[in-house]
Amino acid sequence: MRRSLWLVPRFGSCKGLLGSPRLRPQSVLHRHPPRQVLGTSFSSSTDALVARFCPKTTDLKDYALPNASWSPDMMRLYEEFLEKTKDGEWIKLPSFKSNADHIRGLKVPGGLTTTSKEDGRLFTRFLEKEGQGYEYVIFFNPAKKKSVCLFQPGPYLEGAPGFAHGGALVALVDETFSKTAYLSGHGLFTINLNIKFKNLIPVGSVALLNVELEKIEDHKMFLSCIAQSPDQQVLFAKVSGVFLQLELEEEE
Amino acid sequence: MRRSLWLVPRFGSCKGLLGSPRLRPQSVLHRHPPRQVLGTSFSSSTDALVARFCPKTTDLKDYALPNASWSPDMMRLYEEFLEKTKDGEWIKLPSFKSNADHIRGLKVPGGLTTTSKEDGRLFTRFLEKEGQGYEYVIFFNPAKKKSVCLFQPGPYLEGAPGFAHGGALVALVDETFSKTAYLSGHGLFTINLNIKFKNLIPVGSVALLNVELEKIEDHKMFLSCIAQSPDQQVLFAKVSGVFLQLELEEEE
Repeated sequence: MRRSLWLVPRFGSCKGLLGSPRLRPQSVLHRHPPRQVLGTSFSSSTDALVARFCPKTTDLKDYALPNASWSPDMMRLYEEFLEKTKDGEWIKLPSFKSNADHIRGLKVPGGLTTTSKEDGRLFTRFLEKEGQGYEYVIFFNPAKKKSVCLFQPGPYLEGAPGFAHGGALVALVDETFSKTAYLSGHGLFTINLNIKFKNLIPVGSVALLNVELEKIEDHKMFLSCIAQSPDQQVLFAKVSGVFLQLELEEEE
Repeated sequence: MRRSLWLVPRFGSCKGLLGSPRLRPQSVLHRHPPRQVLGTSFSSSTDALVARFCPKTTDLKDYALPNASWSPDMMRLYEEFLEKTKDGEWIKLPSFKSNADHIRGLKVPGGLTTTSKEDGRLFTRFLEKEGQGYEYVIFFNPAKKKSVCLFQPGPYLEGAPGFAHGGALVALVDETFSKTAYLSGHGLFTINLNIKFKNLIPVGSVALLNVELEKIEDHKMFLSCIAQSPDQQVLFAKVSGVFLQLELEEEE
């Protein structure tokens, strides 16, 4: 009975899907690909994806809002980026409890069985209690296909005593890549991650994750991330990642 | 005041330490380095490290023991590996709430300020409640410098609905690398991780992480991990990692 759980999408079969005319290969110039290029192979543009991802009204709790655990540094940076959303260049992304909430009404093609239980939670939102686990907010720039994530690790993310676990940083970079890749051009699955760690992040401090879409080739999206202190004096890590493009379908 | 938090070890300064006679470079043959080679530069052998890491009596809770949330598959594999510990070839590693508990009485040289709070928790043990977060146990083979980690992801580790987040897998691989590198030869800090994702892991299923120490060169330990289903029919990910060797010192 448990064998039925293995009905997961192997990337081999996903790659098979890429042969369809709807998902024909595309090549995009290095950095800041023009919006129309990303629109050629897919039915939804970045603007349409963003509009759906950021509902104007919702009954879902947004975990990417300030709370009492946010430090003055975290609040200052949040206000700074919120100011940049006023002319529409940057967008503050909402963050719900589960990805099932983010893709309501959509399904993954190719036989992915989504058996999310009621108690399922997005890994980077594992804790309801404020300040103990992940505190973060992602701002996305649709025109430039880049994101900034403000990250304040809590004491439940520890690796070396007093410092965030390397894996906790990687998970959040993967999560920021994931949202950036999806909104920039239907990036859905992480294929590869490469992380160079440089310094540890003290628990309770703030790290800035600067994520950029570098290029798209053969339905693979190449992203980069620089994680550093807000004053850019301490480099925490450099990360590169590759995502597979795959368009979600409307549920019947 | 918050600037004092940046007194973290930059790997540059750690590398500086490596110039001391006590930590002179060593080169070790590919795979299964003989125990005595690892002992040449450091005061503690793998046997001594393991003996200290696995106290015979302790008042600390071991989170790597079966509980009611473990599936029949997880229990079967646990019993199977526990059987292999009887002749001493394999050792079941304890898993405490924080790394501060694992390195009691020891300190990191080179100015690492450990400001762990009372409420600090190892990231991969973030949840007290059984079955919702990480369920895992690591078995270590001291002679062959390799480990096996049995991993059952709970619903709080979700990425795609119903499946474990890629970052949750990476964090546990990093954690298994970390314990393996430390016990095999004082590997302390992750320098690099490279992950190739192949298939998603369904929440509630079991993944086997096979970790091996491949080689040691210039105080860098090179590790590999194959994460797959227990029947070896589904490959979840391949990971390589590099750790920096640095010996902990006795606290005064």
